[in-house]
Amino acid sequence: MALDFEIQTAKAPARRGQLTTPHGTVETPVFMPVGTQATVKGVPQDVLEELGVAILLGNTYHLMLRPGVEQIRKLGGLHRFMSWPRAILTDSGGFQVFSLNQLRKVTEDGVTFRSHLDGSSHFLGPEQAIEAQIGLGADIIMAFDECTEYPAVPSRARASMEMTLRWAQRSKEYFEEHEQEVPWSCDGRVGAGTLTRPAELRSAFRQHSSPAQMRVSEPTRAEETQALFGIIQGGMDHALRKESAERTVEIGFDGYAIGGLSVGEPRELTREIVESTLEHLPKDEPRYLMGVGTPEEIAEYANLGVDMMDCVLPTRAARHGLLYTSEGKISIKQARYASDPGPLDPNCSCRVCQRYSRAYLRHIYAANELLAQTLNTIHNLSFYLDTMRRVRHSI
Amino acid sequence: MALDFEIQTAKAPARRGQLTTPHGTVETPVFMPVGTQATVKGVPQDVLEELGVAILLGNTYHLMLRPGVEQIRKLGGLHRFMSWPRAILTDSGGFQVFSLNQLRKVTEDGVTFRSHLDGSSHFLGPEQAIEAQIGLGADIIMAFDECTEYPAVPSRARASMEMTLRWAQRSKEYFEEHEQEVPWSCDGRVGAGTLTRPAELRSAFRQHSSPAQMRVSEPTRAEETQALFGIIQGGMDHALRKESAERTVEIGFDGYAIGGLSVGEPRELTREIVESTLEHLPKDEPRYLMGVGTPEEIAEYANLGVDMMDCVLPTRAARHGLLYTSEGKISIKQARYASDPGPLDPNCSCRVCQRYSRAYLRHIYAANELLAQTLNTIHNLSFYLDTMRRVRHSI
Repeated sequence: MALDFEIQTAKAPARRGQLTTPHGTVETPVFMPVGTQATVKGVPQDVLEELGVAILLGNTYHLMLRPGVEQIRKLGGLHRFMSWPRAILTDSGGFQVFSLNQLRKVTEDGVTFRSHLDGSSHFLGPEQAIEAQIGLGADIIMAFDECTEYPAVPSRARASMEMTLRWAQRSKEYFEEHEQEVPWSCDGRVGAGTLTRPAELRSAFRQHSSPAQMRVSEPTRAEETQALFGIIQGGMDHALRKESAERTVEIGFDGYAIGGLSVGEPRELTREIVESTLEHLPKDEPRYLMGVGTPEEIAEYANLGVDMMDCVLPTRAARHGLLYTSEGKISIKQARYASDPGPLDPNCSCRVCQRYSRAYLRHIYAANELLAQTLNTIHNLSFYLDTMRRVRHSI
Repeated sequence: MALDFEIQTAKAPARRGQLTTPHGTVETPVFMPVGTQATVKGVPQDVLEELGVAILLGNTYHLMLRPGVEQIRKLGGLHRFMSWPRAILTDSGGFQVFSLNQLRKVTEDGVTFRSHLDGSSHFLGPEQAIEAQIGLGADIIMAFDECTEYPAVPSRARASMEMTLRWAQRSKEYFEEHEQEVPWSCDGRVGAGTLTRPAELRSAFRQHSSPAQMRVSEPTRAEETQALFGIIQGGMDHALRKESAERTVEIGFDGYAIGGLSVGEPRELTREIVESTLEHLPKDEPRYLMGVGTPEEIAEYANLGVDMMDCVLPTRAARHGLLYTSEGKISIKQARYASDPGPLDPNCSCRVCQRYSRAYLRHIYAANELLAQTLNTIHNLSFYLDTMRRVRHSI
């Protein structure tokens, strides 16, 4: 097994655990910031470390188009490429193929689509998605799935679910044949790392070569592989979700994700589907709810027993001046903050709230300054991570 | 006197000194990064501190238009507004009025111009420029001058220089009548600072109230005022420059700036004018060369005896992917860096060169990521500050 997942305490259905990856241990439930193009927009990696980010998400679709998987693989994989020594999860690329491409063509093999960057034609199926994710070398990678649209008639939801199951099987088979190709598991041969390397990269390199330093209890090299998660689909139908869960578990993965939610359905329905799907997932494996949500929602889902979540909301909202605080959501562009000398959130200990006033944050946002996006993102991420910290302590 | 300037060593004409301001001591020769709108574009204040920035420059023109001088004054002045505990210099606004406004109208009183933001009409003369700079509360403020255009016929250069001299006199008179109005020198009444203040702001506040902590040798409150610098003009004419210098010194300022250069003239001419103007400035007062230059140039001018310089070049070039290194200038967007695992500058110890590869910097620049602008700017500033550090050590 590439992952070690240990539940430490539980207040059913919620549970608190530790997910041990080749790049460090992750306390769960965990929120994973999104680093689409090998960067969490506007935030330097050392600040992410300081915030306590233990795992972040990279988007295979974006990275395969730019700078390209082969480029990253040759440079030693995504960890070294972006100088991120902690854990990474990549999605399969499927979601972006479906959401960013009007002209896609789906067959049993996979999806033909055009790059949103230059219109060039590309193909992604289960084998290609896993090959790309092995090349990127995240700690946790995802099976290739079809995200069923909302609403979908019953026959469509079933057909889509069945295809996702067949793709899950193919994803697993390809992974098992090729998992040794991960760029950080090849006995010290770590890509093109022969030239001078900055100190931090060397340090990351040492972690890759000697995971024993990080996982004292299980130091064998065989564990130094990626983990593959399966994805549950089934639309908004409880019975289909149950069937998808059971048959995906039957194929067998290192963890299970709930996909196909937050696609336009009402929030109450999201919650119902999450709750009923979780019942059919193994209690001792990590559970990942994809693409949710507000601070209230991530706390709610964690309390339902979800272990991992990701969402672009804190980072995207920050870039639009929407800031989450202990006193509610703030639109920093509002004129009322222009003379406000107080911190953004008096109950927040992040470096933004410790140093800058609302008046200053409002000014740099209104003046279209780069720093506004950076500081706003740091605060929102801090708020999300604090929210999860509080949930963990409450379990 | 608001400033204490002490020359420690000299290798004539170069000199190494210490400029003590109400907000800390500045080692000279010094490079001052430009923080136009109360932020050095893309770089958080704590990173500027870590880089060793001892003094930065704010632009009165931009700040008076947005967020407005009164706004900043009410919030305790620019230091507290932007949470910058070290020294600040503001320009008079004159340069931007001349360079950003096609429709300006110049009279003996001053300049009527339209805001580049919303077209609203504004007026700036010596009194208004000093009033604005007192409201902003920088440690060093500048007399209002006319930057003579290049090329200029002799009669135009003289008329412009004469007006700058009259404006210098008026600047000084207004300053002497109003210098006690600086927001940080009013016996603890520091603007609207009654609400909750972040820790760092409180710390800055303590510095304002108790400069004794920073200037042990001269702790009297009377010193806690701003310093006013005069500006030498005179176009590209050595005789006019000499006359401008002598008559400006006669008016009497805390320091002297050389203005009206880097306006399109050949670099050799810049150097000649700098060299000949310096001869007519007091040896024991700080000398500030405005708006220059490349790393080679700032080293050259420092070796000619200039104590202070500012330039948008390192920050602006960074945002365009142009990076200064010990091996020459690099355009990081070039494809040749896409696979380069080495640091940007192997001889640089900045946090960017310590952590990231050229391949990564190239990727995030090509992908138009915010982080590219931040990391590029941090490196270029580090390179400039290191350049000045080396010059200081060589004197």
